[in-house]
Amino acid sequence: MSKNIKIHEVGFRDGLQNEKVVIPTELKIRWIERILNSNVDIIQLGSFVNKEKVPQMADTDILFKHFKSNDYKVLFSALALNEKGADMAVESGADVICLGASASNTHSLKNTGMNTSDAVSRIINIARMLTNEGKKVQVSVQSAFGCGFEGSISEEHVLNIAKKYIENGLINISLADTAGHAYPEQVTRLFSAIKSFDENTVLTSHFHNTYGLGIANCYAAMNAGAEYFETAFGGLGGCPFTKVAAGNVSTEDFVHSLNRNNVRKDIKLESFFELSKECSDFLEKTMQSYVLNVGQISY
Amino acid sequence: MSKNIKIHEVGFRDGLQNEKVVIPTELKIRWIERILNSNVDIIQLGSFVNKEKVPQMADTDILFKHFKSNDYKVLFSALALNEKGADMAVESGADVICLGASASNTHSLKNTGMNTSDAVSRIINIARMLTNEGKKVQVSVQSAFGCGFEGSISEEHVLNIAKKYIENGLINISLADTAGHAYPEQVTRLFSAIKSFDENTVLTSHFHNTYGLGIANCYAAMNAGAEYFETAFGGLGGCPFTKVAAGNVSTEDFVHSLNRNNVRKDIKLESFFELSKECSDFLEKTMQSYVLNVGQISY
Repeated sequence: MSKNIKIHEVGFRDGLQNEKVVIPTELKIRWIERILNSNVDIIQLGSFVNKEKVPQMADTDILFKHFKSNDYKVLFSALALNEKGADMAVESGADVICLGASASNTHSLKNTGMNTSDAVSRIINIARMLTNEGKKVQVSVQSAFGCGFEGSISEEHVLNIAKKYIENGLINISLADTAGHAYPEQVTRLFSAIKSFDENTVLTSHFHNTYGLGIANCYAAMNAGAEYFETAFGGLGGCPFTKVAAGNVSTEDFVHSLNRNNVRKDIKLESFFELSKECSDFLEKTMQSYVLNVGQISY
Repeated sequence: MSKNIKIHEVGFRDGLQNEKVVIPTELKIRWIERILNSNVDIIQLGSFVNKEKVPQMADTDILFKHFKSNDYKVLFSALALNEKGADMAVESGADVICLGASASNTHSLKNTGMNTSDAVSRIINIARMLTNEGKKVQVSVQSAFGCGFEGSISEEHVLNIAKKYIENGLINISLADTAGHAYPEQVTRLFSAIKSFDENTVLTSHFHNTYGLGIANCYAAMNAGAEYFETAFGGLGGCPFTKVAAGNVSTEDFVHSLNRNNVRKDIKLESFFELSKECSDFLEKTMQSYVLNVGQISY
């Protein structure tokens, strides 16, 4: 098993975007500051998408401006779904630009107004352009494990999208389980297959815990070669354009499980606990994290 | 991966024993009836332990009398921790008698009044006697992955107990994570090691979801050769003599995850949903099962 495990904190994007209360920018800044020095690898500050459709993300450019004025060890990422978003991400100075297309036509149309095939082509064009400019890009297949609207998503279909990414030199690939339908054996099959296409691929997993399988799926992905794990503080989250929106895998729970095996003990869990508690108080909701609620194992 | 996966429902024992309200026997009978024909493999009806210390289990003999009067496909198991309990289990007609000793001295003393070494010897003597009488016996190592009181439990220590079981011809072995401290890599190491001692061992796993790793641990155990999985309807449970008691892995969540891979689709999840909902209403508490609360994936 790879011990080179990286955590990509997506709580400020995928975590907050499903919350109805728009978080004031100053509060977001304070929350982000809580984990700036936590040794987490990447923090996703937001997404450059339609501000009217996703008002929670309307201040993403302000957040980038604020945090790029300093020099942090952590990388900052942003999500974009089209050319305009990608341009804004470049302008913002994002260290990593995450682009994605959904394997589910229905989800793709709801999320971007494009069908899967068009979205994939568009993403590839944008990603190639960004890569040529020297930007670090991650391309994802959303709804890669099933869809709340369409049901089953063919594994062959998902792998064909991944193949297209690889053929275009895009080897930072994420498989995202937008609906939470993934199960461990499927995760193993898909990640192993992509790794077999090109052993140089750098694989990212993104699981939602809708049916309680989030962490089991992370471990299946890890054993199949995934290195990056997108998780959200307090297990917040859910795509606003999916059918049953449920939280991401909790960063605290996943990191705590790694710690049990002496992996990533450098990540400061206490910083995440503080962040999640503050967010929990503000949103007046219980966070979906076991360790946060029970307390960590102390040995 | 083994596809010969068996479910041992322990909700009526490990699930209920931590509930303060003693469930009336007639209600327990009605609840048990809900899953009699669900195609679950084993139902643990209760334990033969000190009735004053664990009043919830005081009617175990009545439950066995009630259900042995008929002929069901499902097997009934009972837990016993000493000679007296084992005698009562035999008398009750239990199909499977589960015996256990804790790898943690502190937990062992609290649970049985004996230290680990004495408890193991005693369990082995009882188990050999029962096996010689033709009874089906399962021997477990409780607190096999860590202890809320003692902290870390040496893997060598756990494996030495398992070795003793095997040397005495006891090959139905369960590792129980009483405190919920297990993590996937540890589960893989311990189950694989026992399988390597004797490939004929029949391995059972029993995980609590204290830190959100229950199902991830089930999959690690499965991949290391475990065939039997002790789970509880609605994720009920927790040992009354452990430090932080938390629920067992939810039967519904685990079976639903197996179903996603076309495994154990014969198990009637609807029966479990009805049971958990009835129990939830009676106990006035939310069950710890994702699928129960969200609804199953329909394809």
